[in-house]
Amino acid sequence: MLTIASDAHRRHHPREPFHDFGRMVAPPEVPERVDRILDAIHHADLGEVRAPEEHGAEPVLAVHALDYVEFLEQAHAQWRDETGAAEDSEAVAYARAIRDQPFEEPVHIVAKLGWYSHDTDPILTGTWEAASSAVDVALSAWDAITTGGERSVYALCRPPGHHAAADSFAGYCYLNNAAIAAHAWTDAGARVAILDVDYHHGNGTQQIFYTRDDVLFVSLHADPAVDYPFFLGFAGEHGWGAGEGATRNFPLPHGTDWVGYADALASAAATITRFAPDGLVVSLGVDTAAEDPDGFELRGDDYLRMGEAIASLGLPTLFVQEGGYCLDVLGRNVVNVLGGHEQAAR
Amino acid sequence: MLTIASDAHRRHHPREPFHDFGRMVAPPEVPERVDRILDAIHHADLGEVRAPEEHGAEPVLAVHALDYVEFLEQAHAQWRDETGAAEDSEAVAYARAIRDQPFEEPVHIVAKLGWYSHDTDPILTGTWEAASSAVDVALSAWDAITTGGERSVYALCRPPGHHAAADSFAGYCYLNNAAIAAHAWTDAGARVAILDVDYHHGNGTQQIFYTRDDVLFVSLHADPAVDYPFFLGFAGEHGWGAGEGATRNFPLPHGTDWVGYADALASAAATITRFAPDGLVVSLGVDTAAEDPDGFELRGDDYLRMGEAIASLGLPTLFVQEGGYCLDVLGRNVVNVLGGHEQAAR
Repeated sequence: MLTIASDAHRRHHPREPFHDFGRMVAPPEVPERVDRILDAIHHADLGEVRAPEEHGAEPVLAVHALDYVEFLEQAHAQWRDETGAAEDSEAVAYARAIRDQPFEEPVHIVAKLGWYSHDTDPILTGTWEAASSAVDVALSAWDAITTGGERSVYALCRPPGHHAAADSFAGYCYLNNAAIAAHAWTDAGARVAILDVDYHHGNGTQQIFYTRDDVLFVSLHADPAVDYPFFLGFAGEHGWGAGEGATRNFPLPHGTDWVGYADALASAAATITRFAPDGLVVSLGVDTAAEDPDGFELRGDDYLRMGEAIASLGLPTLFVQEGGYCLDVLGRNVVNVLGGHEQAAR
Repeated sequence: MLTIASDAHRRHHPREPFHDFGRMVAPPEVPERVDRILDAIHHADLGEVRAPEEHGAEPVLAVHALDYVEFLEQAHAQWRDETGAAEDSEAVAYARAIRDQPFEEPVHIVAKLGWYSHDTDPILTGTWEAASSAVDVALSAWDAITTGGERSVYALCRPPGHHAAADSFAGYCYLNNAAIAAHAWTDAGARVAILDVDYHHGNGTQQIFYTRDDVLFVSLHADPAVDYPFFLGFAGEHGWGAGEGATRNFPLPHGTDWVGYADALASAAATITRFAPDGLVVSLGVDTAAEDPDGFELRGDDYLRMGEAIASLGLPTLFVQEGGYCLDVLGRNVVNVLGGHEQAAR
């Protein structure tokens, strides 16, 4: 399988510890994740690894608000300018608007950071470069399917994207790579299904497509009653307006192993088949691994089965990297999904 | 002047550094603030210092939402229970809801912390006890005016209150002492004006009374375009619905000294006089001091003038302590306002 990857992700390397369930933790979304995945790809001889091509702002602005994109691009420079913070500092939100109150357009960078985020992730001097390059990775992978004759392609995106909403960032995500590629696909006339198998609900992706009927969003994830991102991802969310019925969530309990996961994945696959899409985007997080600090218990071989189950949908498939933080098994598990898919799709 | 003060505030003593304009700072809202103010009160022989009486939940629930109050009361126990954090840990929000998205009632403590706050202040094991005691301080001071025959009383509240909204905490504030006392006063049939002279806009107080015509909210503060709390406090905010015209903001530039401040205070006083209230609540922050880290330049004697200007309104006056963080001048400046007021009111 063809992989698209870029080196620009290295410009985004958060280091400051943050609050996480009552502890301070070091950021696990690190550049080495990409190194480990590429090692596994080379080791498994999965196929060519190609650099992305630039796609410009237009496909990004089809999904994200202009003021948000301008903010992201300028945030760290404004932060340094208005706070005197250093080039290598991390710009972090703290002040938020009071619910439902009117106010003028945020002016100061601290206000903007609070307005354009839904957790306390930092923006670094290289965040924009890394995030926009990750979009190019996803779009170049999509190109390879729609105009390059590939049946399935892997976009090794970093930073990930599925927690990024139309106008706010969170959960290590700044631009929603999967959503931008899915929208580009619909723009080319296709009906698209997004299958999000990351441990965490793809709340950004859901928000972006919540009122649309041309993109089906299906997600398997930890129960948001007890896990990040908490506020979205419940089974009762089905979409709004025209999008009614085009969102489907499978919240799963802590301790879920392949038995429980495979059941939900089969239901998700049936939902996708009923939608009859022309193409599939997989938000591929492998933080469902038993070795990951999160609460699911999938094992190495389970990811082969996951790839096979996705292949059984028989769709052109764009895999977009999301989470997965245990460096020791991350590469193996990603390659198992991709290899299992390729093997079964033959 | 009679002072009401309680020792329960000591149960709330945050110590973890937090993000503030690009730096990590130690919490300046510390118990020693009360010690310093009491020292100055004794030194100046300002008058009796009396303990508060308990007022129960009813006056709190007249201003704050029941679910919010229940959250505050149980938050740290739930935090310890669900995260395994220690008794002396600080419960801090990080995850927020995506704007305008539907979701179920927050369940996990991390979700609740995000939902019920508008910055990253902590909740400690003693926060509820301290905050509810500060409400008793404000209400007991109000009692002394309305049933005790006092003309003006000082409520030495800690934690402060004016950033606390109807259902969220921020800016060192958990329960809105001034708003609760003001509402109690209206409940007794009075028209009430609130004059907020803290350096920071009283966004919580404004939100609580924004649609009401029986409470006038007037605030002098740093321009929210460039200073905390950022999202509210602009000159264009006048109230909503029945409250239209009963909110008045005077945002002032960094570097404001007594000359500029006195001008705005005169306009604020004229606004209050036009409203013809029966009583006045002063949200008394003295973080406008030149010695404070914030951006105004008021000097010790200016606080005597401030007290005199407030006395010229000729109203029964409840002073409620808000901010002020320079321990060396905090007590002197508070006593100058109270003493200047008392002297002029004679």
